[in-house]
Amino acid sequence: MTGTVYLVGSGPGDPELLTVRAARLIDEADVVLHDKLPGPEILDRIPAEKREDVGKRAGGERTPQSETNARLVELAEAGNDVVRLKGGDPFVFGRGGEEMAYLAEHGVPFEVVPGVTSAVGAAGVAGIPVTHRDHASSVSFVTGHEDPTKDESAVDWGALADTGGTIVVLMGVGKLPDYTRALREAGMDPETPVALVERGTWPDMRVATGTLDTIVDARDEHGIEPPAITVIGEVAASRDRVVEFLQGRGGDGATPADDDSDGGETA
Amino acid sequence: MTGTVYLVGSGPGDPELLTVRAARLIDEADVVLHDKLPGPEILDRIPAEKREDVGKRAGGERTPQSETNARLVELAEAGNDVVRLKGGDPFVFGRGGEEMAYLAEHGVPFEVVPGVTSAVGAAGVAGIPVTHRDHASSVSFVTGHEDPTKDESAVDWGALADTGGTIVVLMGVGKLPDYTRALREAGMDPETPVALVERGTWPDMRVATGTLDTIVDARDEHGIEPPAITVIGEVAASRDRVVEFLQGRGGDGATPADDDSDGGETA
Repeated sequence: MTGTVYLVGSGPGDPELLTVRAARLIDEADVVLHDKLPGPEILDRIPAEKREDVGKRAGGERTPQSETNARLVELAEAGNDVVRLKGGDPFVFGRGGEEMAYLAEHGVPFEVVPGVTSAVGAAGVAGIPVTHRDHASSVSFVTGHEDPTKDESAVDWGALADTGGTIVVLMGVGKLPDYTRALREAGMDPETPVALVERGTWPDMRVATGTLDTIVDARDEHGIEPPAITVIGEVAASRDRVVEFLQGRGGDGATPADDDSDGGETA
Repeated sequence: MTGTVYLVGSGPGDPELLTVRAARLIDEADVVLHDKLPGPEILDRIPAEKREDVGKRAGGERTPQSETNARLVELAEAGNDVVRLKGGDPFVFGRGGEEMAYLAEHGVPFEVVPGVTSAVGAAGVAGIPVTHRDHASSVSFVTGHEDPTKDESAVDWGALADTGGTIVVLMGVGKLPDYTRALREAGMDPETPVALVERGTWPDMRVATGTLDTIVDARDEHGIEPPAITVIGEVAASRDRVVEFLQGRGGDGATPADDDSDGGETA
């Protein structure tokens, strides 16, 4: 009897932001296949005997997607109910779509269990609404890590700038100088507010704010590192206006961008 | 002692897609302020004595946002811990940003509890990944219901088409003819796949699929009604390829778009 594969989003990292269904499926599954993105607090909750890390192979390189696909089918065909646990939502830049297609091609029953995407959740916990009636009629998600096999111009930064809406870049710490330049060259106001949210919803969450012109310096000054999201648009200025009353992991005390006393998070 | 306001996303409607934190806060809150968007399964879980519906006033019109803002402050200042429960995520077209700003202006402590946005979750459960390495380097969310006080052109459909990524329209059943025409006029291929997902993740979820050219007819033929999301892009074709093996509420048996035997969901 073939088992079922559950393509499960783990949310941005806080275990309390797992969905009720994700938490239950993790408890009930025979095997949980994961990489590092769900974060340590969530991974530590999974009994070691049913965890299988497909994020890295011996030697340190990434497990090829084809191996992960094949392993999902192999485990299900052996009768296991398998949770494929992915950071955020399985279908927001998670290759979940490829895994789903492969499962269907091989006749393996599967269910999709959406999660809180970091693109929305990490921003929200930091006091940044990705849309706003007065400032942002749309929000676009894009990755800073483009698939190297794709044409360089796969992301049209000019078109994203022209939408006039919020842009959230996932996995965009390293290429921040490149795409902030592309957006300025596309005519976006260099004074546009930008926020970097590192490890959003994690206990050691950090936030740095600036503008399209200053955010690279803010990143370097505060030493912001992956994983992080970049929020570009008027809404990014919201944090500094509300942080005094913000509770939880995104709040003021919980998220010093550094230990300096030179103005904190606002570059 | 002023209470805390929790701006909580309820997810797309399935109670199991509440986050662990949202479920707990609903149980613990003194008052839960809500409108209709969380859906009946979630609203029915809230004890009647602490529910307060701010979606409608006597007479049927919507409660003005200013009244909801004032009520949140009033309840918190009276010492209540208040859950402000919103469909999907509080910051994706939910006016949560306005409520947060108002709370901060009035010195009321608040926490943001993100939820699974319907824009991602309803699509995912239906077998549609909003991004895909081969088909969609970005995804943009927009509403079909524009604020009538805004300039008509607030949403730049041409720029959204130019991104080349997936477009998800929330609350876009009524204006489907208008924006599909705008996208065609902006040069988007009329054969671009489109899916409508009504009541995504609800027990009576329904899906209709077509193209930019045919989706209005599919909507009318299947009688698709709000609340629904519209997914526009190559990824929308995914459902028909995987639905045979899709389990859960988005699966084949669970979501007849109608009772006809004339080809089902694919227009």
